[in-house]
Amino acid sequence: MINALDVIEDENKREKRMEGVKMAADNSVFIGNKPFMNYVTAVVMQFTTKNSEEIIVKARGKFISRAVDVAEVATKRFLTDQAVIKNIKIDSEEFQNEQGKQIRVSSIEITLGRK
Amino acid sequence: MINALDVIEDENKREKRMEGVKMAADNSVFIGNKPFMNYVTAVVMQFTTKNSEEIIVKARGKFISRAVDVAEVATKRFLTDQAVIKNIKIDSEEFQNEQGKQIRVSSIEITLGRK
Repeated sequence: MINALDVIEDENKREKRMEGVKMAADNSVFIGNKPFMNYVTAVVMQFTTKNSEEIIVKARGKFISRAVDVAEVATKRFLTDQAVIKNIKIDSEEFQNEQGKQIRVSSIEITLGRK
Repeated sequence: MINALDVIEDENKREKRMEGVKMAADNSVFIGNKPFMNYVTAVVMQFTTKNSEEIIVKARGKFISRAVDVAEVATKRFLTDQAVIKNIKIDSEEFQNEQGKQIRVSSIEITLGRK
């Protein structure tokens, strides 16, 4: 028998593990400088407990390498039989920084889907 | 009339600009910590003077973000009408580091092709 309090406790633990990682309405997660495993946990839970069909791992600039790490660890280590990398897009936008200099910032979107 | 010495000089300048950037036999360039524009120049020249149909920008670990930057700057700024991003693959391999710890390193391969 499942104890209601146990479920609540589990839920709290999970929230703790993915602390500060926000999942957008379109099932995308934006990679920043929170602890690495928070992002992995957020992605894994999205497939396992939220039953999502697809999730998009997004990042800009130096966080692009990290987004690839998150996608790889989530699919190869935790979701081996459940999720795969479906699509990868890269892009960039040019804008003026505070010093008035034109700079270009790259971005990546990695779509993970059910196997 | 083209002066043979001018051509040689140009060739030397180009070699200087892409100093240390090695193009593999399969038209791939591996991104590391050489100056950023050396990689961009190597990619651009491969399309413009070497007439390649395809080139693969490869990187591992933290250099993945840089590989995306190189691909974006080369295609959007220098080869706007000539090259596009054709395909992107990510992968990772797990191995034991010097401290005997299992670590996973991600990699990326960005294929650029003629428009």
